[in-house]
Amino acid sequence: MARLSRLVLERLMRYYRFLTETAAKEAVETITSGEIAEALEIDPTQVRKDFAAVGLIGMGRVGFDVCEACRAIRVTLGFNRSYEAVLVGTGHLGGALLAYPNFVRYGMRIVAAFDNDKQKIGQTVAGQIVKPMRMLKPFIKRRKIRLAILTTPAHVSQMLADRLVAAGVKAIWNFTPTGLAVPPDVLVRNEHISIGLAEIAYHLKDQAAC
Amino acid sequence: MARLSRLVLERLMRYYRFLTETAAKEAVETITSGEIAEALEIDPTQVRKDFAAVGLIGMGRVGFDVCEACRAIRVTLGFNRSYEAVLVGTGHLGGALLAYPNFVRYGMRIVAAFDNDKQKIGQTVAGQIVKPMRMLKPFIKRRKIRLAILTTPAHVSQMLADRLVAAGVKAIWNFTPTGLAVPPDVLVRNEHISIGLAEIAYHLKDQAAC
Repeated sequence: MARLSRLVLERLMRYYRFLTETAAKEAVETITSGEIAEALEIDPTQVRKDFAAVGLIGMGRVGFDVCEACRAIRVTLGFNRSYEAVLVGTGHLGGALLAYPNFVRYGMRIVAAFDNDKQKIGQTVAGQIVKPMRMLKPFIKRRKIRLAILTTPAHVSQMLADRLVAAGVKAIWNFTPTGLAVPPDVLVRNEHISIGLAEIAYHLKDQAAC
Repeated sequence: MARLSRLVLERLMRYYRFLTETAAKEAVETITSGEIAEALEIDPTQVRKDFAAVGLIGMGRVGFDVCEACRAIRVTLGFNRSYEAVLVGTGHLGGALLAYPNFVRYGMRIVAAFDNDKQKIGQTVAGQIVKPMRMLKPFIKRRKIRLAILTTPAHVSQMLADRLVAAGVKAIWNFTPTGLAVPPDVLVRNEHISIGLAEIAYHLKDQAAC
């Protein structure tokens, strides 16, 4: 199968969420690309193309089997394989991610949290006892951790990324507002928490003009 | 000007962030659509189309003036008009958003935080004294607040959305994992914090297969 682009993966995630939550709630067994397209405001042709990319072909007007579609997306994205993650930086956002209950649905489990703040080490944040930074590398190596979540101040993020990569991490979920330089086999996923403000400011500007 | 879609607005936000941060850091005066496209992994034709939609036409091989491009995007998105917001729910994620320093760059300022937890009311969270819920509506009315940020448990989010709309809010930035029903003139921006896991799980699955 051809490598899927980030945008296709994100749309698959939206379909998956919609199918597991909305459709499941209403006990729907089949769904058409048009219904999915309308609910998610995506072009129906795009929906069919994305579904075809994961091997799903709709049955005419009946559409897609919801369970089968969920399974195909889950397997394609890899949510059926669980994987462990470490979190570095236990500030407000780190605490929010540690407390977030739904990651396990996507295969991910945060198994340790690290900080360099002596006030925090040994304390419990959202159920995790905060570990000192000197234990980061041995922990990653021993548990063969492949994902690290970075929620530190921006000025230390590249230094930490280097340490994480040296320890064997293959993906960094980066919540710091800085780009990270990593080797080509390591994925950096940058989260840009402000992006929603584009839509919000544009809407409010328009409202004000009314 | 035609109404811009959510996807166009999000791309404009990415260009804006890239132009203000990366390009500004390197004191670049002009930039081509090809350079922007490469840095952000977006098709160059798409970049030119988006820029044209905000009135920016590149000058051949010289490309776009960085300052002019920033200004055009800022005005289009409405970042040049500042607006105030209230935050409802001062848990981990609420605290993270209150502590986030960069929203003001996009015109938004959180001016009050509300919670119904008696342990939290009167306490300071990331610089804001937490106010009781009974003050929510009068505060919104008096200050003419048009944006509310919702970081509460899912089961109260619709009830709160109804109260916010009744108080006069025109946009809800929804960090709860529930869709909200609102009148057509109110924007709900749903943030889906797990979406990055699509790309991460897919990458790690691929790595494991190597």
